[in-house]
Amino acid sequence: MKIVLIGAGNVATLLGTSLQEKNFQIVQVYNRTLSAVETLGEKLQTNFTDQLQHIVSDADLYVFSVKDAALPLLLKEFPANNGLWVHTSGSVPMNVFADSAATRYGVFYPLQTFSKSREISFDHIPVFIEANNSADQQLLEQTALSLSDKVIPLSSEKRKHLHLAAVFANNFTNHLYDIAAQILKDQEIDWEVLLPLIEETAAKVRTLSPKEAQTGPAVRCDLPIIEKHLDMLNDDPKKQAIYRMLSEGIYQQHGYCGLVVKTNKLP
Amino acid sequence: MKIVLIGAGNVATLLGTSLQEKNFQIVQVYNRTLSAVETLGEKLQTNFTDQLQHIVSDADLYVFSVKDAALPLLLKEFPANNGLWVHTSGSVPMNVFADSAATRYGVFYPLQTFSKSREISFDHIPVFIEANNSADQQLLEQTALSLSDKVIPLSSEKRKHLHLAAVFANNFTNHLYDIAAQILKDQEIDWEVLLPLIEETAAKVRTLSPKEAQTGPAVRCDLPIIEKHLDMLNDDPKKQAIYRMLSEGIYQQHGYCGLVVKTNKLP
Repeated sequence: MKIVLIGAGNVATLLGTSLQEKNFQIVQVYNRTLSAVETLGEKLQTNFTDQLQHIVSDADLYVFSVKDAALPLLLKEFPANNGLWVHTSGSVPMNVFADSAATRYGVFYPLQTFSKSREISFDHIPVFIEANNSADQQLLEQTALSLSDKVIPLSSEKRKHLHLAAVFANNFTNHLYDIAAQILKDQEIDWEVLLPLIEETAAKVRTLSPKEAQTGPAVRCDLPIIEKHLDMLNDDPKKQAIYRMLSEGIYQQHGYCGLVVKTNKLP
Repeated sequence: MKIVLIGAGNVATLLGTSLQEKNFQIVQVYNRTLSAVETLGEKLQTNFTDQLQHIVSDADLYVFSVKDAALPLLLKEFPANNGLWVHTSGSVPMNVFADSAATRYGVFYPLQTFSKSREISFDHIPVFIEANNSADQQLLEQTALSLSDKVIPLSSEKRKHLHLAAVFANNFTNHLYDIAAQILKDQEIDWEVLLPLIEETAAKVRTLSPKEAQTGPAVRCDLPIIEKHLDMLNDDPKKQAIYRMLSEGIYQQHGYCGLVVKTNKLP
């Protein structure tokens, strides 16, 4: 199978190297910035271009891994061919291709957080696929299964909720780590003392549901501690508001302190 | 060294089994509820009691692992002896012992999340210690070092900030997992598809600072997606408020969208 990668970011890079390891042929990489695509082209030892009119037309699969906002504009100008076009975005519906020159199209969404500075393996990354016809759905499924042991067909509508859930589980979680690190920095405590706790928090939900795994002052309805913590955050209204909001969320989910929440907001 | 454990919860249980593995002698466990202390006493094959007046007076170390709010009341009635008294709480200052019959006292705070249903090892749990005299500080340090490779002296004042940071990194993080699980449940998507993402999110901050590791719509200043996500949460104002608040927190920390935040709140 001959593949063209469009984009040269973290997803394109990991996809390119992972596909090559499984003996897929990356025949070309395209990016509108030459320097970025040159780096990826050299890494994959393949043809690269920053010119849309130079894109090869006889590949089997065209994988668009570009910024969500850039995709519709790029598709308007992307030259027609008979290949299967897929994007790798969680939040863009499949029908973004409906206005393009594509006749066969779909989605190949790997659910993971990618950074240039971390090498990760594709083996267990869940891949959510969708296609505008069943033959291509099967083709995508086979391709995905050669990279990952977890391949799941999913509609665009459901995928956007999945992406929203991932923002909570990944982006917002990381921001909470950051807030914790800021609190410790102010106290001149090495933030890395939190790493075993962070790892156990993540590991715990492999065997308990998050609801079962919940601990802490809010689920215990321990108002004196919550009040102390809110006081400690008096100088930082943004963190204080986040503390209050998440505590209320825990209250609501567990219902232990129903009366308190109903009669007056948290202290 | 002869040790009495006061309390029969998750911390007392892990401490008891871990101390015994290192050949410390748990001579007694106390809890005000007989059934709970009986379970722990049998597990540790040691003497147990629910009567304060039966507590042995010749132990070297008395470890109080009870609810924060219960500790001052318990200390008022706890019979005098010459042992070293420590509690295991993140948020209770050492001087809670000042009004008790203790003459030697301190804190032994293991920073981890404990559940009865999960066996974890003490080896790498950071332990924060404090004592009211330097000889006992050394004694606690030695004891802690036989359980864990990470032992750190820390004042009560700094420890309460550490505990606050841990609430963000553990309790609130777990609540975000729970919100993600709720969103997926509504879509009939198996929540476990998020586990590789959750694990990588936690693993990433071993090599990158949380600030460096931040990804997602908010740090990219991707207002169209943020707006879509907020719309999707219209029926759930609590989750919507959490989404908005955490996105604003990310904005503030990274400053990419300074102008947007200053002129008007997030969409």
